[in-house]
Formats: sequence, structure tokens, C-alpha cells
Amino acid sequence: MRKQSIAATFAITLAASAAHADEGMWMPSQLPQLAAQLKAAGFAGDPAQLADVTRPPLAAVVSLGGCTASFVSRQGLVVTNHHCAMGAIQLNSTPDNNLIENGFIAHTPAEEVSAGPAARIFVTVGFDNITDRILAGARGKTGRPYFDAVDMAKKAAVAQCEADAGHRCSVADMYYGSEFYLIKQLELKDIRLVYAPPVSIGNYGDEIDNFMWPRHVGDFSFYRAYVGKDGKPAAYSKDNVPYVPPAVLHISTAPVKAGDFAMVAGYPGVTFRHRTASEFANQIDWLLPNRVAMFDGLIHTIEQASAGDKAKQVLYASNVASMKNNLKRAQGELEGLRRSDAIHVRAADEAAMLAWLKQQPDANSEQTDIRALQAELNQADAQRERDFILPFLRPGLLGAAVQLQRLAFEHSKPDAQRESGYQQRDEPMIEGGLKQLQRRFDPVVEKATLRFALQRYFALPQAQRVAEFDAVFGSTIDEAAQRVDALYAGTRLGDQATRLAAMNLDATALAASSDSLLKAAAILQPALLRLEGEAKQRAGELLRLRPAYMQALIAYRKSQGRAVYPDANSTLRVSYGKVSALTPRDGVDYRPLTTVAGIVEKNTGVVPFNAPKPLLDAIAKGDFGSTADAALGTQTVNFMTNLDTTGGNSGSPVLDAQGNLIGLNFDSNWEAVSASWMFDPRYKRAIHVDMRYLRWLLAKVYPAPNLLQEMQLPVE
Amino acid sequence: MRKQSIAATFAITLAASAAHADEGMWMPSQLPQLAAQLKAAGFAGDPAQLADVTRPPLAAVVSLGGCTASFVSRQGLVVTNHHCAMGAIQLNSTPDNNLIENGFIAHTPAEEVSAGPAARIFVTVGFDNITDRILAGARGKTGRPYFDAVDMAKKAAVAQCEADAGHRCSVADMYYGSEFYLIKQLELKDIRLVYAPPVSIGNYGDEIDNFMWPRHVGDFSFYRAYVGKDGKPAAYSKDNVPYVPPAVLHISTAPVKAGDFAMVAGYPGVTFRHRTASEFANQIDWLLPNRVAMFDGLIHTIEQASAGDKAKQVLYASNVASMKNNLKRAQGELEGLRRSDAIHVRAADEAAMLAWLKQQPDANSEQTDIRALQAELNQADAQRERDFILPFLRPGLLGAAVQLQRLAFEHSKPDAQRESGYQQRDEPMIEGGLKQLQRRFDPVVEKATLRFALQRYFALPQAQRVAEFDAVFGSTIDEAAQRVDALYAGTRLGDQATRLAAMNLDATALAASSDSLLKAAAILQPALLRLEGEAKQRAGELLRLRPAYMQALIAYRKSQGRAVYPDANSTLRVSYGKVSALTPRDGVDYRPLTTVAGIVEKNTGVVPFNAPKPLLDAIAKGDFGSTADAALGTQTVNFMTNLDTTGGNSGSPVLDAQGNLIGLNFDSNWEAVSASWMFDPRYKRAIHVDMRYLRWLLAKVYPAPNLLQEMQLPVE
Repeated sequence: MRKQSIAATFAITLAASAAHADEGMWMPSQLPQLAAQLKAAGFAGDPAQLADVTRPPLAAVVSLGGCTASFVSRQGLVVTNHHCAMGAIQLNSTPDNNLIENGFIAHTPAEEVSAGPAARIFVTVGFDNITDRILAGARGKTGRPYFDAVDMAKKAAVAQCEADAGHRCSVADMYYGSEFYLIKQLELKDIRLVYAPPVSIGNYGDEIDNFMWPRHVGDFSFYRAYVGKDGKPAAYSKDNVPYVPPAVLHISTAPVKAGDFAMVAGYPGVTFRHRTASEFANQIDWLLPNRVAMFDGLIHTIEQASAGDKAKQVLYASNVASMKNNLKRAQGELEGLRRSDAIHVRAADEAAMLAWLKQQPDANSEQTDIRALQAELNQADAQRERDFILPFLRPGLLGAAVQLQRLAFEHSKPDAQRESGYQQRDEPMIEGGLKQLQRRFDPVVEKATLRFALQRYFALPQAQRVAEFDAVFGSTIDEAAQRVDALYAGTRLGDQATRLAAMNLDATALAASSDSLLKAAAILQPALLRLEGEAKQRAGELLRLRPAYMQALIAYRKSQGRAVYPDANSTLRVSYGKVSALTPRDGVDYRPLTTVAGIVEKNTGVVPFNAPKPLLDAIAKGDFGSTADAALGTQTVNFMTNLDTTGGNSGSPVLDAQGNLIGLNFDSNWEAVSASWMFDPRYKRAIHVDMRYLRWLLAKVYPAPNLLQEMQLPVE
Repeated sequence: MRKQSIAATFAITLAASAAHADEGMWMPSQLPQLAAQLKAAGFAGDPAQLADVTRPPLAAVVSLGGCTASFVSRQGLVVTNHHCAMGAIQLNSTPDNNLIENGFIAHTPAEEVSAGPAARIFVTVGFDNITDRILAGARGKTGRPYFDAVDMAKKAAVAQCEADAGHRCSVADMYYGSEFYLIKQLELKDIRLVYAPPVSIGNYGDEIDNFMWPRHVGDFSFYRAYVGKDGKPAAYSKDNVPYVPPAVLHISTAPVKAGDFAMVAGYPGVTFRHRTASEFANQIDWLLPNRVAMFDGLIHTIEQASAGDKAKQVLYASNVASMKNNLKRAQGELEGLRRSDAIHVRAADEAAMLAWLKQQPDANSEQTDIRALQAELNQADAQRERDFILPFLRPGLLGAAVQLQRLAFEHSKPDAQRESGYQQRDEPMIEGGLKQLQRRFDPVVEKATLRFALQRYFALPQAQRVAEFDAVFGSTIDEAAQRVDALYAGTRLGDQATRLAAMNLDATALAASSDSLLKAAAILQPALLRLEGEAKQRAGELLRLRPAYMQALIAYRKSQGRAVYPDANSTLRVSYGKVSALTPRDGVDYRPLTTVAGIVEKNTGVVPFNAPKPLLDAIAKGDFGSTADAALGTQTVNFMTNLDTTGGNSGSPVLDAQGNLIGLNFDSNWEAVSASWMFDPRYKRAIHVDMRYLRWLLAKVYPAPNLLQEMQLPVE
């Protein structure tokens, strides 16, 4: 098979494939090649215009680091989700004026408040393919050397790029090591809070409604970006001036209805859609069920060990809440992937791809690489029980001991050569963690979780046991229970001062410590370093071999008339589709738009369904002005599309066929949790704030006519 | 206002009232007057034909006592709900052949099994207005004498009617004392089980899906009624012959779709739709919230008192389950009535009625009676806290002591004059209860519930306190706690033999007992008799005065062009409407038909979502033959209508425009729990088994071609 560049692979005429028309988190540069599909879907603009992220409209779409936002005025006004601005809202709350509960309106720029020194807005100013530069030093290498060569080249590119003051740079890996892009972003540092509704609007329904449809949330807030008088990024100063963005989105005043074209631009975090069939099977048949069982068991263990003891329950409350969230997500993902029959669908697709590849000329080296990739994955699978359970064998205090030993080990190297996470700049974080442990740890509970995890360890096949872990915990579960008691009886690390003091001991001093947990950590350390080395070796091989798989997949899709987007990696992507209803299960239909009637229906007066009185009064009054939906005869609140999104898309602008802003993405439906692995068009939906609801709140409920005027919108 | 007979009031031309077109549990005799509405709704038959319950088609609709059923063949074949036949299925189950789990098919009449000696089918053979006969002796009386006169006349009518062997009779009170009907029913006693699907079909989803839509239940079973060779009702005998019913329903083979006309005939239990505005307000603002608080508190009290004690938990499991069910129903009713704004809607309607009445000539005596009715209800309200709490002050063992004292008191009268519930025929039931207590009682838990209820008692205004209760429990809650301990320390009634022996003691002996609970019961008895007397006095007044209210309501409705049905009272009623979707809340639509896809979606393999393999296989095979829905391209399971139903309608036949059987009613949706008080057309739906699903199961899954042939239906 001819080795053409992957970018060239896209330069083909693609036939619209109905079954997959709405799947895809496209790189903007791919959109011109999708012109026919975009037009067929209803897009009225010029796809070529979308290709350059430094030009309108995509230049209006910015990252907050974890969230997406967009510029909506020439004076640096930015709109994003309420939950993305929560830190700034919290920071400015006082006992006398709780902005979380009351909301916030700056009637003039002078009333705006700082979002805090850590707040950032990143404006993408460069997006360049530097694949050759990144891979030059890696070619010919394998395993760990391949990994290190890529890593070094990335660090060098970032350092060179960041020499331009006021910018932050990163290298994005597209198609699993196939292509690398240098992304350069202007880093705006003076961010101010302009408008936030009360949390009882901005997060109406909270955890109860999270992931659910129908929704009734006003999940939006406004920021404004400021720069120095020289127009350059600067820390907060009264003298700073509004940043003039390279592009601005215009908020639509047109209705939104089922079937309308919609497009979302944002920074989706991570997806696994192009993983191999064996990785799908591993995820669904092995990892997710094991994750469910593990979290379920751990939660049960902690609840039993802390039953009737309020103090212990408080220590583990945050831990348990997080595990319950993980458990719920894993269950949702498993349920969805099984419903989509993902194992068989992916396996059949891969088999067809490999059969097709076999027929292609010059495909030998690709086939060799793909076989090697599969062998590498099989090897990983052979150790999966071990790799799954080992992290659970170093909880809380024992984990701190392991970390302290590793820190001492890394201290013996020059800072630049230390493992990431153990450099000087990481030490405040380590210290914070060691302090926080005081409020997250109880020996009785930790021993119970350790015993629970050790049961799984001792159930490992002998070949997966690790000598150093055996040395610490013994050879049977009964022995381990005694060893665990002894470990926690003989340690003084439960004392915060002792833990913090140990941060400054060198490796020799720590190795000589008589503390039982530090001694155990010293025994475990060689094993952990060895396993880490193996993992990096594997990561290098996967980075080297996956491009062959992606190359085959892209070529195969091309033969089907379809393009391939890279899996999400927190870079700017565009998805297009339409406003869509959902049939979540037999007999039930979800409408694509919700209305204020649902706010009243859900309202109990108790958090999280405590709509504020001005909102309830305004709904009762029924004065919806220019923002009402004429067809529905009332005010809409949220709407749903079939757009392809994932975590990181929070705050992303949803655009109509003309490129006008019709919604803010803020969630997905429960049935779409599994979309990180497989996009099932029957169930995948994204949930948005209808900009008409935002406009109505600004016009009639918590008025901010100044902002409406600034955005050139009707004030009622 | 002219005092015309209420029956005559219906003999008017009624304009169809769109808002209320689907509300109404009509007496069959009312249907000819509704001919225009029936026709407009799509009914293709002759409404006059429906008026006589002893002629087809209503003569095919029978009562099982609590459930409804219908004849579907000339050989006495009867179809009803699976849950209505559960007793018979259980009775015939053995460890070797659990019919609940396996289902049951009699391939020939010889394989049919007896539904047990208590099974009954009641065929209505007479339905006569005997109002004058019942009220003749009551006229001119008030209060208790009015009540007693009506009661005596009813007993006399029943006794005379039941002189005809093989019949059971009752007197039904229509429009709250306005009209009385003598209902005569043939009592068939040899009932046999013919067919039941496995419970995993017949009750798929069980409590989890109870009250829920979408549903996927095959809630049906077949019985056959037998009579002696002389054609008369007879107890089970091998020599009996199939009963030839006066009418038979034909099962439809036509499709069912949204908007289709539908009609249900059955024996709905009790509704309160025509209660006064003040009774609505009392129910919603006072009784239901108090019921919720009381059951919630009692459940919490029992759970706390039995925490960590498995034996105690088992003793109260059934009690707690029943209270949770009561709690859930009360919550649902409250939620629904508030959503429907029932207090204001009913109050506005009543106010309009009273204003209209004021304009009518000759309305003085009616107005006087309505004022007196309201005064009587106000008087009851003034004691409602007391009347609510007193029953909770005699739980379990103390309740048994009260019952034993009352039994001794009643024993001193001739049997015929004893209070209903304490006659000789009731004694086996009393004995059963006293025995069952052994498995439902623990002194620690009972004392806790008593203390909980006493807190409410001691919070009563002084005017509502009862001297005898004060004498037993003291004057403060602290004193009461000590008295309760003493009561349970000084009783031997916890011993079953002692309890049963006390059934035979006379009043003098019991009065002399030194048992602490029997002594307490002796003190309470005069109070309970006094309050019972007051209640009967009030019941008499309400029975005398409510007809004026009903008269006014009926006349007022007539002026609006609407008829009035009597509130449900377990007599045969007909409701008509259509196959209907539901919008339960903003953004959600429920389709009116479910399909087998939903069975697969819900299936977990674990009870209650453990569809049997033959069903799952048949669904996978997709061979739905003549029973498939052509429009949906698959097999339907359940469907929903807006028919007016309530408890007692279980098993009721749902008929199409031609009078053919299209469904079996088996449940209502959660949003309709409040319909016992107010029919809100937005939310009231009834849930039915689609007869096509029944036919498919009989044809393809658990085949019974003999039954299909007997019902003249396609066998595939």
C-alpha cells in the first residue's frame, strides 16, 4: 500500500454516509473536505472559512482550560457555562453577598470583579503540523527510546514556542502518534466576572438532573477579558483595557426547532473511538465490569468500616462521593456499550478493514505493524489483573510512604531529569496532598480497604504476582491481614508533622527508617520503578505501531467514502448535526426543546429545585417578549442536538446554519455516557442552554440591558 | 327549584363538552342518554344495547369480587388479569411444579384445575332502582335513626333477594344516598384455572414497574366457570359442566392505534369526585400531608426500634411494606392533586354551582340542606386531629385487648343485633387475626409506635382530648411513656393461648381481669362506643343531606349540558374514550403502545426483569404472525387509553368501536393516582394488555391452540 501522508488522504471527494453523518469531532482543517456533507446537512456558510482557527468564526472560540467559551462582543465579552465560572463566582462571594445564591450583575464595566489570579482565557493563534520535527529523532527507534525521543522533541518545540512572551504552547498528538500539531495560544490573565444567574437557575436540578433529559438549566455566565494598554496579556490591573478579540459570535434571534442544522465548536477532552477491537472487548468485557465491582466493593467496605462512626464517615465522605460518581459513570458506560453491541460492531468493522487491507498492494509493512500492535496489546492484557489491582494496594497513608520514598529517589537526580510530578515545581502539590491526607484518612478504614484489595491480589495467577508485594504482604490473605495490622501499628506517618518532615530526608536516611510503612515502601519501590519502565516501553511501542492501524483505518474509510477524525485530545474540534429528539427506550420520546413549564413542575422550593421567586413570578406572568417560541407559545429553556461532544465541550458555542450562536453546550444525556468509546446515533445527544432563555433572563428576570445592548440584542 | 327525579335529569340532550368528554364512570343505564357523545367519540354500536346489564355485551362482564373479568366463549371461558388469578395459581403450585414460575396450560378441559373453594364469578342478573323502598322508612328522620332506617331497609332487601338460591345480592348507594339499586348476581362456585403465563410475563417488572409507563406485562389468565348438570351454581364437582354465559365478548384481530375509540366495562371500587370543596381542601391540605407524615414517622420508628434485630424486622416486614405502599400512594395522590390545582378548581366549580343555585326558583330547601351539610362537615373537621390519631393508639396487642372487650360486650346481645364484624359469622376472622398477631408483634417495637402516636395525641388541643384515653395514658407524654411500659409489663396477652381463651370470657369476667391491657381496654371501651355512636349519627346526617348537594350539582351540570355519573361504588360502570399518548411532564412524551423491544431492553435476567427464555427467543426470532402491528413492524405488548378507571377495574375488558375485545385493563399510570378525587384529562391514563400480545403468546410462545380455536381466533 502506498504510504501517502494522512492529510492527503482527506483530499478526496467524500460521499455522504447517512449512518455516520452526525458522528465526528472534526479538526477545523478537515472541514473544507466535508463541504458537500456540511451543505447537505444545511450549513449555509463557507466551509473553507471554518478551516483556519485564527480567523472568524472559530477565532471567537476560546479555551478556559477544561472548558470552552466564546467572544460575543468587540469589548472582550465572553460567554461560557455557569459551572465553568463557578470558581470566580465563589471567589467573589462574601457572607454578606453570596454570589452563588444571589447571582451577579455588573451594570457597568466598573462593577466587574476579578475572576482571580488563576483565571485564564486561551486564544488560539497558531495550529501547525510539525509531525516531521517530532518524529525525526524517533524514526528507527523502538520502545522506550522511541517514547523518549518523541517526548524530548515535544518539550523542545513547546519551549521554543513559549519564548514568545504571553503565549502558552502545546503539542497535540493526532491519530495516535501519526501527526503532531504545535498549538500556540495567547494567554489572557485579567479575566473579570460580568454576569452570573443565581445557582438555583445556573445549576437548577444539580446532581439529580445531571446527565438527565429533560433539563431546565440556565447554565451560563459572562466574563470579560482585559489586556494591558499595550494590548498584550497582563495580570489584573485597574488600568487594563478590554481585549479586542479576533472574532465575535453573534447571538441568534431566530427560533430553534427540531431538525434545524446545528454545529458545535470546542475543546473535547478524550475519546477512544479508534481503539482496536481487542481494546473494545477488554473495556466492555473486562475493565468496566471490574471497575464496577471494585468501586462497589470499596464503597461497601468503607461504609461498613465507618458504620455508626460519624467522624470516620466525614473523613471518607469526599472519597466515597467520588467513587460513587466513578461507579455510576462506569455503569452507564457499560450499559450503553452493551446496548450498542459495541464489541461485535467494532470487531466486525475491524475484521472488514483487515480483510480489505489484505487486498491492497504494498500493505505488508502495515500488516506487520498491526500484528505487532496486537501482540503488544495482548501482552498488556496478560497482565491486566495485576495492573488493575496494584494501584489499589497503596491507598492513603501507605501511598504517602511510597510517594516519600520516590521523592527521595528523584531528589538524587538533577531537577530537569526527574520524573514528571516529582520536580521542584511539583513539590507544593505533593506537600498539599500530604497535608490533605489528615482530613481523608483513618487507619481502621484504610486497613479494611487494603484487605479488600489484597483479596483480589491474592486471587491473581501466580505469574502475575509481584515478588516485592509478596515480600511486604506475605503469601496468603490471612498472613496479609496480620501484616497490614503490623504495618499500621508500627508507623508514625499518621502524624502530619512526621509526614512533612520526611519530605526533606534523603534516600539513605529514608532507607534506614524504622517506620513500618516507609520500610514497606522501600521494598515496593524497585517493583514500582520496574513496572513503570515496562509501561513506558509499551507506551513507546504503541506510539510507534498505532499509526499503521490508523493509516489502514483511514484508507479503508476512504474506500467507503468516509473521512476519519482523530480521537478527541483537548484540541479545537467542530461537530455538525441537528436539533434532535431522542427515543431513550421503548414507548418514551424526549422532545428536543424544554420550556419554562418544566421549571415550575420540578420546583419543590428545596435545593436543587428551588427556582428563585423572580423567575417563578416572571414565568407566571408569561411575559416572554421577543424570546418566546412562537410555535410552542412559551419560553424555551434547553434544547438537545445529536452533536458529537464529550467532557471539555462544556461552554462550547452551538451555531446555526448561518454561524449565529443559538446555544451553549453544557451536558450530555445518560444514554450517551458510552459515546467516549462508541458514537451510537440512536442515543448520542448533547444538551444546550437555549440562547433565547439566556436573552429572556437578561431582559426580564435579572435584567442586564447593558449587556444586551453590547451584544446588539433586543432589550425585551 | 323543582324536585324532579335524578334519573329524569339525565333525560336531556347533552352537548358534548370537550374538556370532560373522557371523564365518567357511567352507569350502563345512562349510556342511551350519552348516545350523541358516544357516536361523536367513534362508537359504532347501539348505545341502547349497552343500557341493560343482563344483555350482551355487558352481560359478558362479570365480577370476581375485587376484580373484573369477561366471558370469551360459550363454554364458560373467562379472561381476567394474571394478578386476579394469582390465588388460584398459587393454590395449584407444588414444589415440583411451581405454576407461578412455570405458568400453566390446560390443553384439554380435563387438565383444568380448581381455582379453590373460595373462587367466585358473579354474573349480574338484576339491577333495579329501589330508592323508594330504601328511603321510605328514613324520610322524616335525621341522624342516627336515618342511618339505621336505611341500613335496615337494605338488609331486608338483600335477605329477600338472596332467598333465590345461588344468588348474592347487594344494595348500591348512588349519588351519596340519592338513589339505591338492588343488584342481584348469580354466584358461580366451580371455577377452574385454564391458562396462566409464567409470572415473569404476567407480572414482568412487578413493584418496580407498578404504576409506571411504559409497561411490558402479559397480565392475563383464563378461567372456566362450571355449573351443575342442572345449569345451576354448584360447588366443584367432576361431573359439573361448563356454564353457558348470557353473552360473550369477541377478541379483536384488528390493529390498535393512537386515537382509536375505546370503552371499558368493569367494577371500579371507590372515587370521591363529587365530594364538596371543603372535603377536597381537607384531603389535600390536611389529611394527605398528615397521612404522609404519620406513615413516614411510623416506618422510621419501626425501623429504628428493630435496627440490627433480624427477628423483629421479620415480624414487622409485612406491616412496613404495607405502610410504605400507603405512603407512596398518599404522596402520589398529593402530588397529583396539587399539580391539578384541585382545591381551587373544585372550589371555583362549587362556588359557581351555589351561585347558579341561588338564581333558581324553589331552591330554598336544597340550599338549607347544603348549608346543614357544610355545618356537619365543619363539625367533623373540628375533631379531625382526634379522629385521625385515635386509631393509631390501639396497635397490635393493645388493639387485640380492645377487640376482646368489644367482643364480650357484643356477646351480651342477640347475634342479629350485634355490631357488624362481631357476629358469629365474623368470629373465625377475629380468631385468625388474634393468631396472626403472633407473627406480627414485638413489645419493644409496639411500644415505640405507641409512644410515637401518643406524641401526636398529647399535641391535640385540650377540647379534642378524650377523658378515657387520658385516664389510660396520663396527662403528659412523659407520664405516658411510663404507663406504656407498665401496660406491656403487666399483660399476658402476648401469649397466643391466653388471647384465644379470652375470646370465650364474658363481659363480667373480662372486666374483672387483672391483665393490664384488658383493664386499659375496659377503660377505653365507653369512649370508643361513644365516638362510634357520634360517627353513625354523622353518617346518618351526611346520608340525609348529601342528596341535596348532588341534586344541585346534577342540575347545574345539566345547565352546562353535562351529565353526572355517581362516584364509583364497586358497581358495573362503563367509561369511553380513546387510545392516548401521555405527556407526563415538560419535554417527555409517552407513546400509547409499547413493543416487545422494551421487554428486551428491561431484561436483566434478575427478578422482576427475568423474561423467560422462550419469550426472549421468540422475540429474537421476530415471528409475530398475524398479531404483529403492521405500522410499527413488530409485536405490541401494552397500550394506554384515557379511560376513566380506578381500583377494582383490574381485568376489565377494553372494547373497540365495534364492541370487540382489544385489551385487558390492569393498571393506571403514576400521574393518575390522584384520579380517585379528580379526573385531570392531561394526566389520567389507564394501562392495558394488548390482546394481540395475548394472542401471540398463545400462538407462538406458550402455545394453547385449543383456546385460540375455542375463541375462534387464528392459531398463528
